[in-house]
Amino acid sequence: MDSTVCLALAVKEHEAAVALTFDYGQRHAIEVERAGLIAARYGADWLVVSLDASRWGGSALTDASIAIPVDGVDTAAIPATYVPARNLIFLSVAVGVAEARDLDAVYLGVNALDYSGYPDCRPEFVASFRQTAALALKRGVEGRPVAVRTPLIDLAKADIVRLGVEVGAPLELSWSCYFAGPNPCGVCDACRLRAKGFDEAGIEDPAL
Amino acid sequence: MDSTVCLALAVKEHEAAVALTFDYGQRHAIEVERAGLIAARYGADWLVVSLDASRWGGSALTDASIAIPVDGVDTAAIPATYVPARNLIFLSVAVGVAEARDLDAVYLGVNALDYSGYPDCRPEFVASFRQTAALALKRGVEGRPVAVRTPLIDLAKADIVRLGVEVGAPLELSWSCYFAGPNPCGVCDACRLRAKGFDEAGIEDPAL
Repeated sequence: MDSTVCLALAVKEHEAAVALTFDYGQRHAIEVERAGLIAARYGADWLVVSLDASRWGGSALTDASIAIPVDGVDTAAIPATYVPARNLIFLSVAVGVAEARDLDAVYLGVNALDYSGYPDCRPEFVASFRQTAALALKRGVEGRPVAVRTPLIDLAKADIVRLGVEVGAPLELSWSCYFAGPNPCGVCDACRLRAKGFDEAGIEDPAL
Repeated sequence: MDSTVCLALAVKEHEAAVALTFDYGQRHAIEVERAGLIAARYGADWLVVSLDASRWGGSALTDASIAIPVDGVDTAAIPATYVPARNLIFLSVAVGVAEARDLDAVYLGVNALDYSGYPDCRPEFVASFRQTAALALKRGVEGRPVAVRTPLIDLAKADIVRLGVEVGAPLELSWSCYFAGPNPCGVCDACRLRAKGFDEAGIEDPAL
């Protein structure tokens, strides 16, 4: 849902967009299919990057032997669904793609209010990444770094729902659940946070 | 060669090592084979991560339509062999693997003296990456960040050759050339920098 809203914003703000999807060995590979449908809806170039993180594991999302928590969002600890270095890897590939294709900006749908406590969703991580990417890239040396935009970072989930509806994002196509489907489980953290957002926004989830 | 010397140092300094190799669509895929031989020599666990950067291109190493420079190392510009965000991506995956497998440190064979002017080989990039990775990872939050070691960063190529010989690194197996082989071309930047190192060290290159 967050990525879908980001794509909607990117398409409004730029002439062209590449929808970058990672097929990283996640259990909920259905999100890859859905991303393709969403990219097609916007006429965006869809780039699927395969990087099999299940080869090293360390997360309930990439290792079937680790249970996905279903008992409620525990904000006091980093949950088992945390994937080591996920956003660091995703952003690194994204700025590389942006530089290779001469794109102005990368959009990332992280938010740090109604979230699972992943460290790589925090503003301080993103701010540090911007500096590091500017030092890594030729474009940084040339004084025109790839922008890294996180338009949702200060929004509550209900605000993201409202914004998505306002910009006409196809939220009915978006997949949040950590399980493979075919229907969202309703009890994983991702389902709970999404439901909380729709509830607080007073909007019915079109994906249910 | 630089990675081989790093592995030799890592094996001396730690109980166990994972030799991480990227199959990223590079023209000189022979380096992947050679990495496997070198990992086997040290009895290291060999992890090959596939990430096809030729999908987005932007480099002579991943796009056959861009020529690899063969006329000498031009230190005034970033050459066409620069791969957008390569070390940023490699390091990001490496710290993710290290966290998932509970390894203490990542070793990276960058050096910023006898080099091609890639921005992601500079000490300021590595220093910034350390900060960003500490913010991205659970281990950073826990106050025990994955160390990122660059033991060669201040060494001239001749010093790296001498160090490699001193620690018994199998330099005869290492592949530097940007072309696919079967023999090193002798005229690309990687071959020239390697030859300069062996020349200045007064040592014959065992790979020739």
